[in-house]
Amino acid sequence: MITTIAGGVGAARLLAGLVQVVPPRELEAIVNVGDDLVLHGLSISPDLDTVTYTLAGAINPETGWGLVDESWQARSMLDMYGGVSWFGLGDRDLGTHLYRTQRLAEGADLVTITREIASAWNLELSILPASCDPLRTMVTLAEDDPEGTDTPPLPAGTEISFQEYFVQRHHGVPVSSVRIAGVADARPSPGVIESICDSEFIIVAPSNPIVSIEPVLAIPGVREAVSARRSQVIAISPIVAGAALKGPADRMLTELGHEASVVGVARLYREFSGTFVIDVADAAHAPEIEALGMRCVVTPTVMKTPALAAELGQSILDAMRGNS
Amino acid sequence: MITTIAGGVGAARLLAGLVQVVPPRELEAIVNVGDDLVLHGLSISPDLDTVTYTLAGAINPETGWGLVDESWQARSMLDMYGGVSWFGLGDRDLGTHLYRTQRLAEGADLVTITREIASAWNLELSILPASCDPLRTMVTLAEDDPEGTDTPPLPAGTEISFQEYFVQRHHGVPVSSVRIAGVADARPSPGVIESICDSEFIIVAPSNPIVSIEPVLAIPGVREAVSARRSQVIAISPIVAGAALKGPADRMLTELGHEASVVGVARLYREFSGTFVIDVADAAHAPEIEALGMRCVVTPTVMKTPALAAELGQSILDAMRGNS
Repeated sequence: MITTIAGGVGAARLLAGLVQVVPPRELEAIVNVGDDLVLHGLSISPDLDTVTYTLAGAINPETGWGLVDESWQARSMLDMYGGVSWFGLGDRDLGTHLYRTQRLAEGADLVTITREIASAWNLELSILPASCDPLRTMVTLAEDDPEGTDTPPLPAGTEISFQEYFVQRHHGVPVSSVRIAGVADARPSPGVIESICDSEFIIVAPSNPIVSIEPVLAIPGVREAVSARRSQVIAISPIVAGAALKGPADRMLTELGHEASVVGVARLYREFSGTFVIDVADAAHAPEIEALGMRCVVTPTVMKTPALAAELGQSILDAMRGNS
Repeated sequence: MITTIAGGVGAARLLAGLVQVVPPRELEAIVNVGDDLVLHGLSISPDLDTVTYTLAGAINPETGWGLVDESWQARSMLDMYGGVSWFGLGDRDLGTHLYRTQRLAEGADLVTITREIASAWNLELSILPASCDPLRTMVTLAEDDPEGTDTPPLPAGTEISFQEYFVQRHHGVPVSSVRIAGVADARPSPGVIESICDSEFIIVAPSNPIVSIEPVLAIPGVREAVSARRSQVIAISPIVAGAALKGPADRMLTELGHEASVVGVARLYREFSGTFVIDVADAAHAPEIEALGMRCVVTPTVMKTPALAAELGQSILDAMRGNS
C-alpha cells in the first residue's frame, strides 16, 4: 500500500494521477477533516468530498469543488429566505451531506460513512478521514476585515472557522495565527497509524501545509508515526515559483512568518520527510533543499491535465522505488 | 381576527378559500407541529410548510405537498448511497428546511422563523406554530407490519413516529393508540392563547381529528381556551359520507373506537365546538348532530377547486356572522 496525506483539490488531483500508474486498491488517502463544518444542521466534510468526487470523475471541472451537472434550487430558496448561502451547497452535493448526517445520527462513524460513500461511487482506493473526532481549523484575523456585501465587519484578533475565512471571506484577509481546535483530544481514525507504519511509502500531497497537512499531522501520534518513517516519506511542494497554485498557502506562509517558497515549505517538512519534490521552475533551489537534509526531486508538478498528474505520480513512484 | 386551528392539506385548502372572502391580514392559522421531524439533521415542519406553500400558490398540485417546479437531485444522490429517502425532500423544499434548521441553530424560535418564511412568500395571513416545544405524535401498531420493499418488519405494539406511519408506511397498517409525546411539558407558542381568546371566532379546519387537531388542543391551556369560547367555535368535518377525503382519518377513527362518520367526529368536538359543518352528502345526519348539542350547518365542504373553497369560507362567515 501507498499512503497519501491529503487535503482537498491538490491532493485529489495527485491521487487521480496515481490511480493511473498504481492499482487503485494499493492506494490509501488519509484526508484532512479540519475544514469540516456543520451548517444548516448538516455535517459537511469538504476535503473528503473533493477527493471522492475527483476520483469518481464527478468533480465540477469549472470550480474544482462540488459535483458536475449540479443544480442550485435549494440555494435559490435559501437566498429567497435571506438565509446563509455563502457555502455553496448544490442540490446533488446536498445528497452527500444528507447521507453523512443521517448516518452519523444513526451512530455510524466517519470512517464507515466515508467508505460507504466511496463505495457508492465505485472507488477502489481507500479514503480515510484523518480523525472521527471533531477537529476545527480556526484562523485569527491579523487586520480588521471591513464589512463585505454579505459579511459583517470583524475586528483584528477575531477567530473564525476555516470555512468562514476560506469560502465566506474568500481568504482575502491576513491571518495572524492558526489553531486546530479539538486536536489535543482527537484520536487518529482506526487504520491511520497502521497505514502510515505499514505502507510501502508515504506521500505528503501538494496541499496547504498549514491548514491541510498540519491538521492531519497534529493529531496525537500521527506526526511521530510519519517521522519514524522519514526515509520513506515524499512530500510534494504546493508552492511553485513562490506562489500557491490554488488558495492562500503562499500568503498564509508569509503571514505566519515562513517563507513562501519551496525552501520555506521544506523547512516545515524536513523533520518528517526525507524526500521533497519541487517543480522544474524551482530547480535552482534544489541545493538549498539538499542542504536542509532532504533528498530533492525536480520534476514538473503542475497538474494541469490528468496526463501531467499521472506523470507526477510516476515520478513519485520512480523516486521511492529507486528508479529515478 | 379569525383564528383557524389547522393541520396540513385540508386546512391549507380552507385557508386558501378564506383569503378569497376575508382580508388575509384578518386571518391567523394555529398549525399542528406534532408531525414535525428531524431527518438528516434537518428540522422539518410538514404542516407549516403545506399551509405556507398552499397559501403562496406554490404547492405541488399533483401531490398536495411539497413545491411546484420541484427537482429531486438530492434525493437521487441519497438513493445512490442507499440512504433514507422515504420522506420526499425535493431540492427547493430542502431550502426551507435548511433555512429553518440554520435559524433554530442560531437561537431563533419557530414562531419567528415561520413568520420569516411566510414573509418571504409575501403572505399576509399569520401562520403560528401551535408550540415551539418539540411535540411528536407517536402511533402504536395494532398488527404486525410485514417487511415492505424499503421498510423492515415491525411487530404489533411497536410505537413509531407519525411520519414513519404516514409517509414511510403509507398509513397502511392498523393503529391501536396515538400518543403525543412531549405534550404535557409543551407550552403554546406566544400568541396562541391570545389568538383563541381575542378572535372574532375560531375555525377548526377539516383536518384529521386525531393526529392534526388533537395535537394542537392537547397543548396545556389550548383546549380550555377553545372550550371557553365554544359558542364562537365552528368545526368542519373532515369526514364526508363516512370517508376521509385524504389520509387515514376514517380508518384511524374506527381503529381507535370512534365512528368514522360526521357523528363520530361531532362527538369528539362537541365539548369545545358550538357549530359543526357537514357536507350535503351527510345532511341526513344533521338531527343527530343537533341532538349532541351542536348547531349543524349543512353545505358543500369538498374543496375540489379554489372557487369551492371560497364558497365554504363564505358559508363559515355567514354561519358565524349571523347571515345564514
